[in-house]
Formats: sequence, structure tokens, C-alpha cells
Amino acid sequence: MEALVRETVLKNDVEGPIREIGGLGANSYFKNSVYQRRAANVTKDIIDEVITKKLDVKSLSSASNRTIRLADFGCAVGPNTFTSLQSLIDIVKKKYLSQFPNEPMPEFQVFFNDQPSNDFNTLFRFLPPDREYFAAGVLGSFHGRVFPKSSLHVVQSNYALHWLSKVPESLVDKNSPAWNKGKIHYAGASDEVLKAYGERWAEDLNNFLNARAEEIVPGGMLIAIMPSIPDGMPYSELANGLLYSSFESTLLDMSKRGIISEDQVDAFNLPIYAAPPGEFAAVVEKNGYFDIEAIGLTNPAPWLTDDAHVDMKEYVRHIRASMEGMFTKHFPNEIVDEMFEQLLVNKLPKVFDKMERAYKDKIQSYYVLQRK
Amino acid sequence: MEALVRETVLKNDVEGPIREIGGLGANSYFKNSVYQRRAANVTKDIIDEVITKKLDVKSLSSASNRTIRLADFGCAVGPNTFTSLQSLIDIVKKKYLSQFPNEPMPEFQVFFNDQPSNDFNTLFRFLPPDREYFAAGVLGSFHGRVFPKSSLHVVQSNYALHWLSKVPESLVDKNSPAWNKGKIHYAGASDEVLKAYGERWAEDLNNFLNARAEEIVPGGMLIAIMPSIPDGMPYSELANGLLYSSFESTLLDMSKRGIISEDQVDAFNLPIYAAPPGEFAAVVEKNGYFDIEAIGLTNPAPWLTDDAHVDMKEYVRHIRASMEGMFTKHFPNEIVDEMFEQLLVNKLPKVFDKMERAYKDKIQSYYVLQRK
Repeated sequence: MEALVRETVLKNDVEGPIREIGGLGANSYFKNSVYQRRAANVTKDIIDEVITKKLDVKSLSSASNRTIRLADFGCAVGPNTFTSLQSLIDIVKKKYLSQFPNEPMPEFQVFFNDQPSNDFNTLFRFLPPDREYFAAGVLGSFHGRVFPKSSLHVVQSNYALHWLSKVPESLVDKNSPAWNKGKIHYAGASDEVLKAYGERWAEDLNNFLNARAEEIVPGGMLIAIMPSIPDGMPYSELANGLLYSSFESTLLDMSKRGIISEDQVDAFNLPIYAAPPGEFAAVVEKNGYFDIEAIGLTNPAPWLTDDAHVDMKEYVRHIRASMEGMFTKHFPNEIVDEMFEQLLVNKLPKVFDKMERAYKDKIQSYYVLQRK
Repeated sequence: MEALVRETVLKNDVEGPIREIGGLGANSYFKNSVYQRRAANVTKDIIDEVITKKLDVKSLSSASNRTIRLADFGCAVGPNTFTSLQSLIDIVKKKYLSQFPNEPMPEFQVFFNDQPSNDFNTLFRFLPPDREYFAAGVLGSFHGRVFPKSSLHVVQSNYALHWLSKVPESLVDKNSPAWNKGKIHYAGASDEVLKAYGERWAEDLNNFLNARAEEIVPGGMLIAIMPSIPDGMPYSELANGLLYSSFESTLLDMSKRGIISEDQVDAFNLPIYAAPPGEFAAVVEKNGYFDIEAIGLTNPAPWLTDDAHVDMKEYVRHIRASMEGMFTKHFPNEIVDEMFEQLLVNKLPKVFDKMERAYKDKIQSYYVLQRK
């Protein structure tokens, strides 16, 4: 959902409201996550450099333990997780070879973690047949422990840490100053709403870091990439802010037409927070278990030049693949179908030029942390 | 499929040919594997005793590696795998506490392995919520490597090692002395057929042991339970032999009625070999990586007393849950439905008394091996 490009690598001609996010259908995440992959590639060089400089590969593999263990937190069903983990393995191998050209290469074990609702059957089905690692699936919320102590060496979390563990309760509390009436996100909302989102996210990230601090060996690395925003910039000016406001406006129109109630809209809020790097760094420093070795903002879509344009229909398909699940938890399926239809026909055309320009901003942050 | 008892713990009132082995439907393995669980319980005391005596728990958990790793090879979708692995953890914990009452308990990580066709989503969904271990799913054939070197401490394989990696080619070769014309198994077949089955199984077990020898630490334990037969006893006299002959007779009748062709029956053979303990021991000794610490035959159904009887309809449901997949790979679904119907109505009633008696034989073997 973070970037746009006229890209049809995984394009599929089947259309319509087939609800098969976890599988391989036209609307599936598997076939509609090419934007996320391209966005992750942008930061590959930076990550490679920091790992090469900082990771002590020798200490990871002793005579008694000749396995290097990697994990992806929030892996979804693939295929991006396979590509990004292979990149990490390649860089670790390269460093190992350069330091110990005459020693046998350690073996690699890769763990794919996601929520219990993730479709692990699809993930397993598409594991690269020629992979150079032993694969395992691990289910459970990454806000808590999912691995034994000191059992991981290099881990990543791509496009996952912006998901909140839950929507802040105050957003749906009529007596709270953070009551988010008539809105579904903090884009363009009150300061109290923004604060409630930010606090929930900071607590989630702190829980994530506490769990990883136990699981990652001293000297091990944690790489994170997430949708973000320059510190101090209003979210409503961002491409995603424009998108969420379009969702909001679509739902409000539907409530005016009596298709859904006003209360239903008031009760719904997107559990997403695209923190600026400053807030991420503040949580890491307060948490205390990790050093920040690299931090920054990038443009996730450098290939989106001024004369490149995005197919809006395809864009909506990609957005739907990663976001539909949030809506179907709250609204009936036919309401969600109608909402995406209205979004495409009525709402997005009005802001799409502005969104295209906004996607050229630096709205993706990356972090390379090292366990102290 | 290995034992019978009038047992309705997981009984379900829905009937009919719903094909949902991997899920939770009436014919699913999940709801129809209570026999396998009861059968495994019989050997629990023996296994506990050998592990307590032989496993050096101290060596498994050093200062640098405080995790004990277990694996189940051929876990299916549960729930039996959860029960039997918890038993293994309990006995390891007990020994640890008795030897080191003042040291902190190591953490446990449990890997559930099965073929790529296994339904891991169902397995994950029913992981015990109060489990005392970190769980991971690992897909891949256990006839090859699926874990890093020396990464496992205690492993088990229950009711899985009788599955052949493939049917011996000679059984469907018209020019071979082992051509198994008009038959679907070695029960009541020629010596050449029996030999072809036995050789395929021995090679599979040797491959399994070679892979586990790399994955299990020196001193680690491997526990196996499988359907078996006393050395020298003809398979056709066994309960499963009677069952397979009933399948065979049903399919032959259907080919006489023109519903399937004779060639289709000739081309089908059950990929199952219930080796006697002597053959298992011979493979382990020739393989050379493991010591046999315990070996034996048990009656899998000691609760099946003379006055206990089995509900035939329920029995067929259980059989179907574990065996249907073999048939649907080869025959159209409607043929398989018809076959199970005919089995229940025409064939099994003729041999069911004899089968009930035969199930009281010692037809389950257990092995406790230790990695040298």
C-alpha cells in the first residue's frame, strides 16, 4: 500500500470482489504485494552495509552451534518475505566468506512468523524449492514472546510495525476528548486522537522490543522497514492520509444514504500508525536493549518519475489486498464491496493526481538495530 | 486405523461423504484419530522409563544454549501430536528437576513436521493455548533433511514410519515377478510382492535414520511407534490385512460391474508396510548411527476386552480419515465414496468379528533409539 508504480509482474486478469486474501486469487496479498517488495528494495544497500560492518558472524556460529537463525516478524503469505530474507542470508554469507574463507559455511534456519490468522499453508506452498535454508513457520503475536531465549541472530520486520495491536479504546468512548466521531483515522483528526494513536503504537513497539531483546543474541541484528512520515509533517498531506480520508468520506456517504449507520462509522477506526523516525528512536532509546545503527527516511518509489503514472484500478486492487481484512472484521462483506467500488468510481479520481505526487515524498522509514 | 474401541470422545453427528480430511469436518483426521492416541498411550510407561534412564539432560542445555528442542515427524493436524509431545516434555522436565532442583528450567521449542500437503493452518489453530513450549511448523519429507545439524534433542514419529515414500515400481510392471495383478497390497500376495514392499520400506527407514542422525545431537533420543506384526506371522491374518483385503475385494467387484477398469485396480497399491520389529532392528543396526535402547510389540487396544464391541460405522469413519487420501490420489472422488459405502454395507460385515479378535493381537511396535 506504500508505493505506486505501473507494474504488472503479478498482474492477474480476474476481477471482481473475490474475497481470498489468504490464498492466491485476484485480490490476494500474494499476487498484490509487488509495491511492498519494490519499496523494501530501496533500503537494501543501506541494510547490507550496516550488517556487513556490525555483525560479528564468528560469534554466531560456534563449534557446538553451527546454525545461524533468522526470522521475519509479520511475514504474511509471501512472496516478499522470501526475497528479503534471501538478501539477508546473502549478506551474512558474504561477510562470513570474507572473514573465514577456509571454514565450512554454517547452516541457516529461517522462521516465518505471523498472526494465527495468517495462511501458513499458502506460505509453505510457495517456499522457494531451491532455498538454502531450513524453513519453519511460527504463529503468534510479535508483541509477545514467540521464540526461546537467545535463539535468533538476524531478524527483520517489513511493513508490519505500523499495525496496532488494537484500536485505542478512547477513540470510541463518547466521553473521551479522543472520541473520533465521524472519522476513521487520525488523518485530519484532533490532537487528542493523534496522541491516542501515538501512545498505543509506542507501547506496542516497546512490547515488540522487549520480546525480541530476549530472543535475539547479544550482537544480533533487528531490521525494520515501515510506512512513515517526516517528523512534524501533517499526516493528512500524505498519500496514505489522502487514501484514508477517501475511505472515510466513502463510508460517511454510505451512512447518509442509509446503507450503514452513523454509529457503525463512529465505531470503526483504522489500526494503523505510520510513526515518524523521531518517535521510533525515542521508543528504542527508552526501551534500552538495542543500539540504533542506522535510521532514515526514503522515498519508497524512486522509479515513480514525473512522467510515470499509476493505473488507479490496479492501485485499488493492491490497497484492497492489504487492507480489506480490517474492514471485513467490522462491516458485512457486501458493504465492503460497495465501499471499494465507490472509492474507485467516486472518491479516488478527485485526489489521485495529488496522491501520485505525495507518493514521491520520503514516507518510508528504515531502522537497523543491534542487540546490546 | 490401528485399534478399535467403542469410543465417542470426538464423535460427531454429521455424516456422509464430506471430503475434508485436513480440516475439522465429520470425516477429518482431527476428529477421527482417537484410536491412534489410545494406541500410543500403551507404550508411554516404557518410553518414559528409557528416557529417564538414558537421557543426559544436563548436556542438552548449556549456559550458551538454554533451549531443549523436540520434534514430531509426521505430526498430521493434531490433536494426538500435542498430547504425546507434552508427555515427552513432562518426562524431560521431571528428570531435569530431579537432577538439578535448584537450576532454572530450560525453555522448550517444539517443531511439528509433516509433508507439504499437511494442513498446517488447522494444526496451528489447535495448538494448546496453555502450552509450555514455543511451537513451529516445519514442512518437508522426513526421508530427507528438514532441520539444521545437531539441532534436536528428543524426537518422535508416531504412526508415520509405515508410510512408504512411494509404491515399489515393480508392483505395476507387467514383466516383473512382483507384478501385483488383481491385488492392492502384500496381504495374501506373492513372496516377490512382500519382498518389494519390505525393501522399499527398509530403504525409506534408512534414509529417515540418516537424516535424523545429522539433526539429533549425540545422546539425543528418537522414539517411534508404528503398526507392526510379530516376526513370521502372515500379514493376511492381521486386522489390517483383513481390512486391506476387503478394500481389494470391493474394488475388484466394482471393476466387474464396470464402474472402474481392471487396469485401474492393477495400477493401485497401498503405500503401507507394517514391518515386524526384527526388520526394524536390522535396518537400525546396518545404519549404525543409533543404539536400540528399547524395542517391543504391544497390543494397541488393551481396553478392547472380550465383551467390548466396536461400532462398524464409526470404525469406517476412522479408517477413512487416515486412508482416504491414498485412494483419492488414484480414483475419482465418486468412486472412493462408492468404495467406502460398499465396504461398510457388503464387505466388512463378513469379516468384522474376525477383525475384532485380530485387533487384540500384539500389532504395534515401539522403539526407543539413542543417537551414538
